[in-house]
Amino acid sequence: MASTTGETLAAAEPIADGRTEEGEEEQVVNPWEVSAKGGKIDYDKLVDKFGCQRLDESLIQRFERITGRRAHVFLRRGLFFAHRDLSDILDAYERGEKFYLYTGRGPSSESLHLGHLVPFMFTKYLQDVFKVPLVIQLTDDEKCMWKGLSVEESERLARENAKDIIACGFDVERTFIFADFSYMSPPIYKNIVRIANCVTGNKIVGIFGLTLEDYGGKFFFPYIQAAPSFPSSFPHIFSGKYSKLRCLIPCAIDQDPYFRMTRDVAPRLSYHKPALIESKFFPALQGESGKMSASDPNSAIYVTDSLKDIKNKVNRYAFSGGQDTIEKQRKYGANLEVDVPVKYLNFFLDDDAELLSIKEKYGSGAMLTGEVKARLIEVLSEIVERHQRARAAVTEETVDAFMAVRPLPRMFG
Amino acid sequence: MASTTGETLAAAEPIADGRTEEGEEEQVVNPWEVSAKGGKIDYDKLVDKFGCQRLDESLIQRFERITGRRAHVFLRRGLFFAHRDLSDILDAYERGEKFYLYTGRGPSSESLHLGHLVPFMFTKYLQDVFKVPLVIQLTDDEKCMWKGLSVEESERLARENAKDIIACGFDVERTFIFADFSYMSPPIYKNIVRIANCVTGNKIVGIFGLTLEDYGGKFFFPYIQAAPSFPSSFPHIFSGKYSKLRCLIPCAIDQDPYFRMTRDVAPRLSYHKPALIESKFFPALQGESGKMSASDPNSAIYVTDSLKDIKNKVNRYAFSGGQDTIEKQRKYGANLEVDVPVKYLNFFLDDDAELLSIKEKYGSGAMLTGEVKARLIEVLSEIVERHQRARAAVTEETVDAFMAVRPLPRMFG
Repeated sequence: MASTTGETLAAAEPIADGRTEEGEEEQVVNPWEVSAKGGKIDYDKLVDKFGCQRLDESLIQRFERITGRRAHVFLRRGLFFAHRDLSDILDAYERGEKFYLYTGRGPSSESLHLGHLVPFMFTKYLQDVFKVPLVIQLTDDEKCMWKGLSVEESERLARENAKDIIACGFDVERTFIFADFSYMSPPIYKNIVRIANCVTGNKIVGIFGLTLEDYGGKFFFPYIQAAPSFPSSFPHIFSGKYSKLRCLIPCAIDQDPYFRMTRDVAPRLSYHKPALIESKFFPALQGESGKMSASDPNSAIYVTDSLKDIKNKVNRYAFSGGQDTIEKQRKYGANLEVDVPVKYLNFFLDDDAELLSIKEKYGSGAMLTGEVKARLIEVLSEIVERHQRARAAVTEETVDAFMAVRPLPRMFG
Repeated sequence: MASTTGETLAAAEPIADGRTEEGEEEQVVNPWEVSAKGGKIDYDKLVDKFGCQRLDESLIQRFERITGRRAHVFLRRGLFFAHRDLSDILDAYERGEKFYLYTGRGPSSESLHLGHLVPFMFTKYLQDVFKVPLVIQLTDDEKCMWKGLSVEESERLARENAKDIIACGFDVERTFIFADFSYMSPPIYKNIVRIANCVTGNKIVGIFGLTLEDYGGKFFFPYIQAAPSFPSSFPHIFSGKYSKLRCLIPCAIDQDPYFRMTRDVAPRLSYHKPALIESKFFPALQGESGKMSASDPNSAIYVTDSLKDIKNKVNRYAFSGGQDTIEKQRKYGANLEVDVPVKYLNFFLDDDAELLSIKEKYGSGAMLTGEVKARLIEVLSEIVERHQRARAAVTEETVDAFMAVRPLPRMFG
């Protein structure tokens, strides 16, 4: 997968085919580019353009009713905000039918930032709630194709990233992590070719914005990301009665193009269309118009950051919606719409009541930026420390265990 | 591989970009289309256009001197007529360096015709002469991409074709036969991606005449046919000191585009450019402007044909350069340039003196078409009977033995 959470949240660039009738520049969201006028993505427009569905309050309530579990904070706060056929998954689950989860990551950097963890934290929650098997694709081949990394370096990054993913707490008895380079094998390759036989070059170019100046692998990669949506790509896990299992994909909405294509193809190959549950992008410290990038370590909080780094980054770089002076802040309050500390708390502060209170006090001027940042530093420090402890406990043997091609001993229940 | 020997030798069709300055239609030769004005390929032009080299008399003599073996009839008679870097292979062989052979077939039909056997007969000769390992690629994935065959049917055809290939007499201790669907694995996939990273979409479209209306796999397949040119695609055979081994590819000249591309890429991946030895196309019974096709069983002699079939096909369908009446034939003699029986004898009659004598007598009118055809029937019957006996002896276990992923126990010498 490419950037799953806003790594490429760039400022808008004028593009020839992204204009409205009035000549206004529109937003561009695809797996390699996320940009919008002013930097702020209009998610409502995106849902309409992509043709996915809004994940509304009634569906969340139904989710809670059926699973008997409180909705995850990412759901309650509208961070996972869109879906495709999630209600079909819930219907099937209610009928006692099974499904599996599929997510992934393009291992382009050594260490992950918090935004990278978002889909994995949420996927772990889904795995716990539904007690279902999970496959995680590490697209080392994609990074080799797109970023010019060597095969060996891409493989190394995939393995390093696997450790961070495992540290999110996945259950080894229900989880298969694989990297494309090392898993490439007849079952998945056959599905790749079957999918390729249903999608023309024109369609690939149209969906993914490629040109013929791109290197050849790029025309083929979309099929590689599509294939894990079909259970027969994993015969060691899904054989016999599970060979047509439904699939639910948690991901950031920039991955939607891959799975739109996959859903088009699925019925022709006699599979269920994969269902999707899609998140917004995780903002850069500099705000939604900033770009989180590995080349600018101050644009994001990394899971390798020290507590000192976190404190420094939040205090120095987190874009504040608060007023310039204490006096003005007391008088006018903060602009919560653009305030990054509030946005980050929205992702990571579990306590709904406390979040509401912070928003009220900060918005009204009763709370100062420094106080909100101090609370954010506490929250992030706890998450990062917990992650680092879990990551340190992941050995090479643990990685081997998750990546072994094997049946999953405790798939369901 | 696509048609290796003239399966698509079609009549010329006017195409937009295949004209000379004078507006004359040129010939088109690529892995999926072989056509020329009047049906007769101008091989001289082709060599110049492709930029390969002529396999001339002096190189054949050098071949005989170095190997201490008489040149194969296909070499002596100019049927393998072009090459790329064959002299480098001979130089290396003379220095005591090793190389390996690579050839292949696209398994598009159940049974092979004689033209399909040509590259394999020649490859077997090369294997015997040089005592080198050989890899044979069966591109079942290609046939699935191009012909709309199901994965399962393509795999079945590949296995059936493997039996006919084995029947040509390859040495199981030196030969690895693999089908793409069942061999797809990390080592070859990594080379495929490495190659893809060196070739743009534009280049693929240019070399192979694809359009964006083609299905996606077609843009990727050239890399799959290229990868076996690099020894690291077969770590079970070529490890350690053999990991950079030279490669020699015997094939029909319509496959040249794949390997032109491969040769461009090779130095960037620190491999030798694969050397090539390239054949002319095997003509249809109806002559060079006819098309050998599985849908017209009378266009070719199949290895499954009965002796009665052979007799009937040669007598009824083999295009004759002889005169309409015995009287005219005695007076004017036959036009050997267009005579299919003579062309076939040129491939399959071992005895140079007899062939010369037939040509002289037939060309002068001393011999009649019926007599030449009778001799051809004898020659073909012997080849087909021998093939059928050998094929009948190939069991499923034999196929498994050739296709097992294993070290080759007696690679050299």
